[in-house]
Amino acid sequence: MKNTILVVGSVALDSVKTIHGSTTRALGGSAVHFSLSASQFTPVKMLGVVGEDFPAPFRRFLKRRNICLEGMEVLPGKTFHWKGKYDQDFKNATTIATHLNVFEQFKPKLNADHARCGVLFLANIDPDLQRGVLDQMGRPRLVACDTMNYWITLKKPSLLKLLKKVDMLFVNEEEARQLTGEYNLIKAARLIMKMGPRGIVVKRGDAGAMLFFKDNVLSVPAHPIERVVDPTGAGDTFAGGFMGYLAAAPDWKNFNVIRRAMSYGTVMSSFSVEDFSVKRVGRLSKPEISARFNKYVGALHVK
Amino acid sequence: MKNTILVVGSVALDSVKTIHGSTTRALGGSAVHFSLSASQFTPVKMLGVVGEDFPAPFRRFLKRRNICLEGMEVLPGKTFHWKGKYDQDFKNATTIATHLNVFEQFKPKLNADHARCGVLFLANIDPDLQRGVLDQMGRPRLVACDTMNYWITLKKPSLLKLLKKVDMLFVNEEEARQLTGEYNLIKAARLIMKMGPRGIVVKRGDAGAMLFFKDNVLSVPAHPIERVVDPTGAGDTFAGGFMGYLAAAPDWKNFNVIRRAMSYGTVMSSFSVEDFSVKRVGRLSKPEISARFNKYVGALHVK
Repeated sequence: MKNTILVVGSVALDSVKTIHGSTTRALGGSAVHFSLSASQFTPVKMLGVVGEDFPAPFRRFLKRRNICLEGMEVLPGKTFHWKGKYDQDFKNATTIATHLNVFEQFKPKLNADHARCGVLFLANIDPDLQRGVLDQMGRPRLVACDTMNYWITLKKPSLLKLLKKVDMLFVNEEEARQLTGEYNLIKAARLIMKMGPRGIVVKRGDAGAMLFFKDNVLSVPAHPIERVVDPTGAGDTFAGGFMGYLAAAPDWKNFNVIRRAMSYGTVMSSFSVEDFSVKRVGRLSKPEISARFNKYVGALHVK
Repeated sequence: MKNTILVVGSVALDSVKTIHGSTTRALGGSAVHFSLSASQFTPVKMLGVVGEDFPAPFRRFLKRRNICLEGMEVLPGKTFHWKGKYDQDFKNATTIATHLNVFEQFKPKLNADHARCGVLFLANIDPDLQRGVLDQMGRPRLVACDTMNYWITLKKPSLLKLLKKVDMLFVNEEEARQLTGEYNLIKAARLIMKMGPRGIVVKRGDAGAMLFFKDNVLSVPAHPIERVVDPTGAGDTFAGGFMGYLAAAPDWKNFNVIRRAMSYGTVMSSFSVEDFSVKRVGRLSKPEISARFNKYVGALHVK
């Protein structure tokens, strides 16, 4: 179980509109995007909640991708539903409707197998719930979490308690600034490190990502995509590729390993934006991933 | 003269205010920023115009940096003066005052040496003047130009005529989109190539830069800077490093050479933002440039 990732987060039905079309009640949610990406590298167990309306084909699809759904609870009521749209710049989603439904009653409960997982990813949910999951774990060798502006504003004390116990934090630029009051990302990352995490990944959309790990600062570009269809879940897909690669590696604290993980995160998220929902990442083959990884890494290797 | 760059552009006195302080009537202008950067790699001759107030120390300083000023005309009146400020995000300058002064009468005239330069960089000035310079040239082996939204709006036909004769175009994201009506940068670059240039560099500020050359697409990150003091001239400094390296290379069309040029452009612009005006780039030593180049390139080399 050393290499197995336990992920807790949302499982959702997403209705999304972009300049390239729209989709209705498609498979989504942070735990789903993360798991489909991470399971390309390592075994994944998912903790989440769905309603009675959650389509059986979605469940079968996730299982076929080697994602353990023992921790996916079914509660009376409807599945979390998000409806949103993007402008042509794909920078900010406009939320049209959020129906939390059964997600409001989510109280993650771990079984013995969950608690023994070597790696934990706490996707963006209430930091009190994130902490509740961490408390139920044995001794994971790598703990990472994501968060959002909402929790930084409303539950900062809970979030700060959590951060003390976390190895890696995933944030976007705004969140890094909001959390620290510091505009410059290098300075902001240094302040976040004092809160607990020894590593920070700053997701920057089409500007790529930055990694801060101990004294190292690394900025990587996005993989250029000619036809961005739907950016929903790109951040969780990045985290899935990054964490999946780290979980499978013998020593995740090695900087070369972390650097490769950044490339895998970048590559996985570049696939995710090419189609709606999980369509692209859900049907990815290992050779497709390797080919794009080699192309991405090769282009950046200045001879 | 094969490796010598002739650059035409503005020579200015800049008064700039940022969160880190301010500077008054400091040395600036596109031709100046470009030349100081390019002259680290190859000989540079500058075409420009100044007023009688242009400080003698500035002239001596540029000459000491091996920039030929034979083409820097002195006209009765005052030097171009720009006054602006930046917010903490350093993304957009707010212009407080623009006094074109003698720059309004600028009519670049080339001598025989200028016309024999192997490489030409047309910094951001009126496309009719850019074309006037190009027409006075012999047969340069590499012609590059910069432009801005103002000319795309007001003088698009002149700009399009110029682009037919240009090898490389430097633009920012907005300009690429404005020029083509296409939001996606890969698609926009492909449309620009149909207008003439075989290579396009899209400058993206702290998101790095993208290069399009024939069928190649390359996205590179910025070199992370902890204390951005003044971004004025960063784009011209990038172009200077890029073009300077290409001009000195035996075959500028080789993609590995172009890739290295992108790294030198990135590195030079990362220095330029660290202090006001040309303070940082003006006092740079070759070992400092090599050290940062090796650090930047090394970080991106995924093993």
